[in-house]
Amino acid sequence: MRKSDFSRMFNPRGIAIVGASTEPTRPGAQTLFALKRLGYRGGIFPVNPRYPEIQETKCFASVDDISEACDVAVIALPAAQVAPVIEQCGRKGIGFAVVLGGGFREDGPQGVLLERNLLETARAGGVRIIGPNCLGFVNVQNRAYAGFGSITRPPDLKPGPVSAVIQSGGFGNSLIVQAALAGVGFQNLVASGNETDIKATELIRAFVDDPQTRIILAYLEGVSDGRAFMSAARYALAAGKPLVVLKAGNTEQGLLAAASHTACMTCSYDIYRAAFKQCGVIEAHDIEDTVDYLQCLATGRPGRGRSVAVMGGSGGASVNFSDAADHCDLALTPFGHATLAVLKDNLPSMGSTQNPIDYTANFVTEANTARLVKAMDAVLADPAIDQLGVLAATASGASFRIIAQSVAQALKKSDKPVMIFSSSQREMSIEALEILAAENVPVLRSPRRVAAAMGVLADYAASLQQRERLIAEYPVSERTLPKLPLGAVTMDEHAAKQLLSGFGVSVTHDTLLPVGTAAASLPRGMAFPVAVKIVSKDIAHKTDIGAVRLNIADDAQLAGAVTEVIANARKAAPGAQLSGVLVSEMVSDGMETIIGVVNDPLFGPVVAFGLGGIFAEVLHDTTYRIAPFGIDTAREMISELRAAALFSGVRGQPQRDIDALAKTLSTVSELAWLMRDRIAEMDINPVLVRPAGQGAIAADALIVLK
Amino acid sequence: MRKSDFSRMFNPRGIAIVGASTEPTRPGAQTLFALKRLGYRGGIFPVNPRYPEIQETKCFASVDDISEACDVAVIALPAAQVAPVIEQCGRKGIGFAVVLGGGFREDGPQGVLLERNLLETARAGGVRIIGPNCLGFVNVQNRAYAGFGSITRPPDLKPGPVSAVIQSGGFGNSLIVQAALAGVGFQNLVASGNETDIKATELIRAFVDDPQTRIILAYLEGVSDGRAFMSAARYALAAGKPLVVLKAGNTEQGLLAAASHTACMTCSYDIYRAAFKQCGVIEAHDIEDTVDYLQCLATGRPGRGRSVAVMGGSGGASVNFSDAADHCDLALTPFGHATLAVLKDNLPSMGSTQNPIDYTANFVTEANTARLVKAMDAVLADPAIDQLGVLAATASGASFRIIAQSVAQALKKSDKPVMIFSSSQREMSIEALEILAAENVPVLRSPRRVAAAMGVLADYAASLQQRERLIAEYPVSERTLPKLPLGAVTMDEHAAKQLLSGFGVSVTHDTLLPVGTAAASLPRGMAFPVAVKIVSKDIAHKTDIGAVRLNIADDAQLAGAVTEVIANARKAAPGAQLSGVLVSEMVSDGMETIIGVVNDPLFGPVVAFGLGGIFAEVLHDTTYRIAPFGIDTAREMISELRAAALFSGVRGQPQRDIDALAKTLSTVSELAWLMRDRIAEMDINPVLVRPAGQGAIAADALIVLK
Repeated sequence: MRKSDFSRMFNPRGIAIVGASTEPTRPGAQTLFALKRLGYRGGIFPVNPRYPEIQETKCFASVDDISEACDVAVIALPAAQVAPVIEQCGRKGIGFAVVLGGGFREDGPQGVLLERNLLETARAGGVRIIGPNCLGFVNVQNRAYAGFGSITRPPDLKPGPVSAVIQSGGFGNSLIVQAALAGVGFQNLVASGNETDIKATELIRAFVDDPQTRIILAYLEGVSDGRAFMSAARYALAAGKPLVVLKAGNTEQGLLAAASHTACMTCSYDIYRAAFKQCGVIEAHDIEDTVDYLQCLATGRPGRGRSVAVMGGSGGASVNFSDAADHCDLALTPFGHATLAVLKDNLPSMGSTQNPIDYTANFVTEANTARLVKAMDAVLADPAIDQLGVLAATASGASFRIIAQSVAQALKKSDKPVMIFSSSQREMSIEALEILAAENVPVLRSPRRVAAAMGVLADYAASLQQRERLIAEYPVSERTLPKLPLGAVTMDEHAAKQLLSGFGVSVTHDTLLPVGTAAASLPRGMAFPVAVKIVSKDIAHKTDIGAVRLNIADDAQLAGAVTEVIANARKAAPGAQLSGVLVSEMVSDGMETIIGVVNDPLFGPVVAFGLGGIFAEVLHDTTYRIAPFGIDTAREMISELRAAALFSGVRGQPQRDIDALAKTLSTVSELAWLMRDRIAEMDINPVLVRPAGQGAIAADALIVLK
Repeated sequence: MRKSDFSRMFNPRGIAIVGASTEPTRPGAQTLFALKRLGYRGGIFPVNPRYPEIQETKCFASVDDISEACDVAVIALPAAQVAPVIEQCGRKGIGFAVVLGGGFREDGPQGVLLERNLLETARAGGVRIIGPNCLGFVNVQNRAYAGFGSITRPPDLKPGPVSAVIQSGGFGNSLIVQAALAGVGFQNLVASGNETDIKATELIRAFVDDPQTRIILAYLEGVSDGRAFMSAARYALAAGKPLVVLKAGNTEQGLLAAASHTACMTCSYDIYRAAFKQCGVIEAHDIEDTVDYLQCLATGRPGRGRSVAVMGGSGGASVNFSDAADHCDLALTPFGHATLAVLKDNLPSMGSTQNPIDYTANFVTEANTARLVKAMDAVLADPAIDQLGVLAATASGASFRIIAQSVAQALKKSDKPVMIFSSSQREMSIEALEILAAENVPVLRSPRRVAAAMGVLADYAASLQQRERLIAEYPVSERTLPKLPLGAVTMDEHAAKQLLSGFGVSVTHDTLLPVGTAAASLPRGMAFPVAVKIVSKDIAHKTDIGAVRLNIADDAQLAGAVTEVIANARKAAPGAQLSGVLVSEMVSDGMETIIGVVNDPLFGPVVAFGLGGIFAEVLHDTTYRIAPFGIDTAREMISELRAAALFSGVRGQPQRDIDALAKTLSTVSELAWLMRDRIAEMDINPVLVRPAGQGAIAADALIVLK
């Protein structure tokens, strides 16, 4: 994987502000003001021919006049004036430009041209561009505030491990502000705007390469290249840097709003979710959970697993936590004997020494601090326990301080994650909050949020455990595909099944009879019962027009069925070209599933899987993965269906051949990948999954080429 | 409905603190301190024979010595000393006692006896009791802080429309604290503890009767009488006072934790949810959403409906809101022509005048205030729009103030709900937040939370629209039930179907043949195909043992089947008493559903409904309602199944007879109610729902009596 080199951008020796202004509300004035107020120590070079100096800083008539080292130009000019400045930057060796203003592709056809010209000029001059139509970027460590608007205003960010790319200045920075208020520290923050040149995906790679960054946050409305995004996400996973994504524009109304907001291409949220799962991305869904996850990841304490303990003085908080633990698939694992012994020795008998621990509200006193610490130590030392939540609830003042001190002491002897639920008023808890902040202990605002954060830490631990599989591009052996028909045509059932069969997918035993000859008897080598179906690339829904007959039991029925399906097809679709009549052996005892492929404009071939019949149509019980993928991923798909229990055999049904089904899914994903330049979609429906050991067989298929 | 009289408790003329102490950490000392610090103006009467005065207040040797009017005694004594004090209270005419301490039923068999004695003493003396084992209660208006611990500590509650009952002091008050910090004002707050005498349900009624209370909040881990709870919830709905419930102890681990925390009986969360739906209860799921809902309800602006508008300068916030709107079933309805004309005249052309409105970030200036107000006025005046969200995002300082002022102006001309999304730092937005607080405008921390709150306002509006139906006890005409067998016995299929049929439920056309006689031919009046089944109250799963034969087509098959099912039943269950062999006409073209009844210890008869087969077993696609109920409620049940679309006909299937199915559900609910003293459970499986107009027919049934 190639290394990205954004170090000059994030650590610029000097910053030019082109279009710097004396009018304080203007973007250029805001940048200059922010750089000075926040103490940027590199060169600050306002550019505006109308002034000798602005805000007591020497002003240059043009970029050409800057003689000191300068790596970033912030351009606050009308759209039409930007390209010439980019050209100057190129000549001057300024490698990065931040184009703040709008008026580009979001502003109609004229803007599209300006944006194209901008990109061409930048490429020609070797200048990389952030924006246009953006708030700019910030490197907190260097106080490089190369932007304007809310990202330059308080609350001032404190340095820390998180780097963020946000595809909306307003909302994205809402997220950053709330995280900052919760104590999260930042390294780089980039509002990527129109992403004409530098895209979110490339910035994610840059953050992975940035040694100061430990955690990456992306607020995305869409990416321009799904595979590139996945590659960047895998790059982050490989480096052990958690990538938290809040993706918006996921529903019908959300997509509409996003379409008018960004010019990003959007695709189904189902496909994004598949990509997130395949690359170990941590998905957040709102501002609060994002902030919680960042806080918990920032501690650098690995999540390990899903066995958790909680302790507190409020039984109600434990009940709420326990409910949430079930939702987050966390187990309140019983303590070992050694742990229980310590707890019994140290905690009041009135409460509970079982998990969840109730030490009762009055227990927290100065005198009991040592006992509280012993209890925490014991829980953290218990090998069965992966994470600890301390439910401080309304504890404030001295009691919260004692809890905080105890946690701080216990933390030193363990590297397991510990988080606090506190509902106290900040003003009443300054001491405790300072102790906890100093020790980097997350303080969350409800027991449910503690459980959710623990769940995410455990998820990420699981991703790390499977890192080798997740980061590897699934190796598809390049095989020669059979010759495909030319053009955007449909391959009929027979042709599609031949292609699948040649690739190793089990299909029904079929014989194609020419339309002209009536079938006098069953084709050689076949056995009743059989199905009889018309084969025509022009007829997609052959069942609906009576061109399929199932369960044909003898020669007489066969002859009748052949005549009938031809007649019905001719009647319903007089112009259709009929390739023949397919005689297909019936598969007994198969559970109906559907495997589909779509060739998504952003992500390329994607495999969809679900149960057949009403499950697909009414319950939308369908799961997706980006092709190609292996057996393990295919097994995940099968297991995450809501109706997954059906494969294990319920109501006297046999266990199904999950191995064969998983192999089929993986094989289809490989085929889809190899056909990526030609496939538009594929629908294998049904795939009949027989009892364990007896295979999964494609009984019908259709492939649309492009 | 009877009026509850808690006015003397909430507005006491004097409060005695029995067990008042000079040691400031003791509960009794805390009560005294809180009453004095917070300015309670009634009589304050510390009781402790050891001191002449405590905290500069005259101390009484016993309750008997108090000569002034006193309505509440707060008792901070060991469990064994409480009952005698209650007796004194009774003699003295003190109507209410708050028992703070534990040591009662949560503390083992001795405590159970003490608690029983406490209740008997209270009843004998005419004293009502809050607790024991509780933080006590507060009336904020009167500064009557009759409790200890966190409810007497800062943040001090400000008076307002919310009264709350919390079944956990620690967690419940966590909720109250966060609501208070968000600006929610309170009337009464009761931590109900063990609920030995006064229960959450009675307090809800008391809050409805309290003229100062407009909104009721309940944190519940369980109620002791489900029907009484429903009656109280309906009483609140009838009064138009929203009841917000956060119910915990809902999952497997949550129930376990609750069982060790409260002594409440717990039942399935599904049943609680059914009760909430049937009584217009607003359900919250965590602290944050509870706080949001209270804020929005406190404005007193009715929600009207699900058509909403948002406006803001951040496109990303609109995208996030739009996603959430889909999840909350809200529509971003297009504006009318008049509205659009105003928006076009007043908002910048660069943004969007469509819903969601983007007025662009730079538009918010002093000079544009009038235009912003005109835009808000137009949106609020649009008859298609029910609610407005203003997405201020990171706006702070002057721009947030301008937004706040505009909202404040627009509000005066409309009574529709308006809420704000702001992510700004409090310190940067004091002016704006003060303006919004003065006008009672909720400020929420994410666009999603705005959508969720709008959804809840719309839900409550819908409940109010259906108030007549929801508050009415469904009238069941008292019919004479047929004579039921005595004792905890099972009614077999034939007996159960006869009972159902007699009550008006369609059942299959059946004939019971005695076991002795072989069936030579089809019973008179029946037609093939038929099913043949053994009938025995001792055999629950007759299919599994081969005692059911379906699709019998002629007399020969019939004779064989009768012999076979008897033989199989005798073989599998040698001791079973066989009542006969049932010959049942097969129902064609029926969709399999299941209607069940359980007799819940808390809620009494509850009807469960779901699709048959794998839907019930694998997908748990089941819905519940408390019996009895009418057709409208039954239709709701049908429509809320995930697979509900099946009833409308998919994949060429006919539309199903929803009318007949709803009638059947309602009839079963009536029967269950009338049998409430005898029914343990009922399982009507399957109920075959035929095409529209052709009925819903019970094909098998089992009733277990108690």
